Amino acid sequence: MAEIELGVTADLHVHLRDGPMMELITPTVKQGGVSIAYVMPNLVPPVTTIERVSKYREDLEKLCPDTRFLMTFYLSKELTEDLVAGAASKGYIHGIKCYPAGVTTNSKYGVDPNDFTSFYPIFRVMEKEGLILNIHGEKPGIKNESADENEDIHVLNAEPKFLPALRKLHEDFPKLKIVLEHCTTRDAIELIRDLNKGTGPQDEVYVAGTITAHHLSLTIDNWAGNPINFCKPVAKFPRDMRALVDAATSGERWFFFGSDSAPHPIEAKSTHVGVCAGVYTQSHAISYVAEVFDQQGKLENISKFVGSNGISFYGLKNVAKTDERAWLVQRENTVPEVIANNQGLKVVPFKAGEKLNWTVEWR
Amino acid sequence: MAEIELGVTADLHVHLRDGPMMELITPTVKQGGVSIAYVMPNLVPPVTTIERVSKYREDLEKLCPDTRFLMTFYLSKELTEDLVAGAASKGYIHGIKCYPAGVTTNSKYGVDPNDFTSFYPIFRVMEKEGLILNIHGEKPGIKNESADENEDIHVLNAEPKFLPALRKLHEDFPKLKIVLEHCTTRDAIELIRDLNKGTGPQDEVYVAGTITAHHLSLTIDNWAGNPINFCKPVAKFPRDMRALVDAATSGERWFFFGSDSAPHPIEAKSTHVGVCAGVYTQSHAISYVAEVFDQQGKLENISKFVGSNGISFYGLKNVAKTDERAWLVQRENTVPEVIANNQGLKVVPFKAGEKLNWTVEWR
Repeated sequence: MAEIELGVTADLHVHLRDGPMMELITPTVKQGGVSIAYVMPNLVPPVTTIERVSKYREDLEKLCPDTRFLMTFYLSKELTEDLVAGAASKGYIHGIKCYPAGVTTNSKYGVDPNDFTSFYPIFRVMEKEGLILNIHGEKPGIKNESADENEDIHVLNAEPKFLPALRKLHEDFPKLKIVLEHCTTRDAIELIRDLNKGTGPQDEVYVAGTITAHHLSLTIDNWAGNPINFCKPVAKFPRDMRALVDAATSGERWFFFGSDSAPHPIEAKSTHVGVCAGVYTQSHAISYVAEVFDQQGKLENISKFVGSNGISFYGLKNVAKTDERAWLVQRENTVPEVIANNQGLKVVPFKAGEKLNWTVEWR
Repeated sequence: MAEIELGVTADLHVHLRDGPMMELITPTVKQGGVSIAYVMPNLVPPVTTIERVSKYREDLEKLCPDTRFLMTFYLSKELTEDLVAGAASKGYIHGIKCYPAGVTTNSKYGVDPNDFTSFYPIFRVMEKEGLILNIHGEKPGIKNESADENEDIHVLNAEPKFLPALRKLHEDFPKLKIVLEHCTTRDAIELIRDLNKGTGPQDEVYVAGTITAHHLSLTIDNWAGNPINFCKPVAKFPRDMRALVDAATSGERWFFFGSDSAPHPIEAKSTHVGVCAGVYTQSHAISYVAEVFDQQGKLENISKFVGSNGISFYGLKNVAKTDERAWLVQRENTVPEVIANNQGLKVVPFKAGEKLNWTVEWR
């Protein structure tokens, strides 16, 4: 039976929500094979104060004391330079998440990516303090009557249309650590590689891309007619999926795992209008990834993708909460039809009912 | 109050189903402003015999004696040249519908578009008898491990990928009347125009495209997360929608209305996996179209699109069942949230709950 030691693993983009959903989902971080989880702040209202971020971390730690939770602020006009500097120096946050307004779940408090300059004072503090800027890289659609095709923004080009803003930001802040979250296009992969062209083996990486588990095996045809696979950014074309798989399995230091696991109650997915965007993968996170690496014959690189690449980018050596280490074990592992509590809350996981070939053990 | 006489109107692509759904939906053909409806044969099993086609028409006429129902066979290996010639000469059918296998609702009995030649004997009979060949123009996706991007078939390029087969068919049967049903791409519009380049004002049209009501106002962003707007072929990009609007409102004789109204019970739309493809527009068919023509300032061409162009292509002069004529009247017209019977069957119409500005009256 094949076994691979993964060591300390990191999922650098998780949604754990609050209330009953948080209670149901938080323990599944460890079940899914993850030692360190970087927790997104898109609650209602968004997390923008030290009080809320520490209370949120305490709540999560109570539910799952073995997992290291890293916290983040939601980039908004409520943040001040002093607040950010204080939160960083005291270790309350590891980064700040930037949502363009209106592109995904609870993003209405987000920013206009055409106006990043108003946040430049904050970015300067982040650069100095070594905070990570995590970007949801989609350009919001603008309703207009223009007949100019180049002006069209839609779910398939929103990420490519955002990329020039990322390039500009890196030019303006070359030492700011930036993550393009949940890359979904070949264009995004090419840009991350391009921006790291001069990065030598010993050099610090400043711009990286996270890739989810589900985008490694979904294309547009999988979510057309299957709301359970609908997320933002949406899965794109087969050529894009191939580029993501190539990047994830490459071992390159600027690509690492951020599941963007985003649980919704089944009622929010089984509806004829207004389906919530998000795919829930947390409970089997590493197993989904292993499936793809195995198919590609690249299991030798999986611990870089789900461990060392992200841990090193975030500067997270020795932050695991326990001495347990994750092992990937080749053993049949059936995804349940539903993850539920006994009050009727039900979340349907990615690939519900399907058999995976790898499971994670803690030793 | 603005009024426009539409005269005899035609919807040259309708799905009326069977059983309770047929009973609920068939009367809405007239409510939606349509005199003549061409009824698709994708029942289970598909309609491929004279007995079934005449029984089906009788059932429909009982439900709605004022509507002229035109019937069609489902192209499959069960059809023989004699059967088709007999059905045509006795007026049982006006055309034959061709579904590529596996692309939409009940299409598993369909044909492989890479192998049209096996149907050439049937097409020869159709050409001779003046039957219409109605094509669902999508190339079925082929699961393969190819890394060649040009081999990828997905919901967004399935129609463009099919177009060379249409061009070939027209070359091989220049006098066969072919309709590319429910055009959704700029590529399709351009091909139909290209194939009619030499068609003079008095010449017979041999290749035409139908356009639905919903594709005149939907793009991919409207069905991403809204299963009620999910249909096959899926709505594409803004540039495609603009091309469809331009074609429909142009008055050109090779573009006319085929709603592809496709009712499903709400349970088949409100589900997290396996949403049925189809948008139901029948009850407000002409009003949806009028909305778009009005916005474009092209109401002077609407009677061509919903009437004379299709009627002339199909050779349908004087087949209206009654002396009533459709009038478009500018009057607020709210789409109901649901069309239902008293046994719990519910269909959610397109733009449910929205206010339209035009209604149809029969005079």
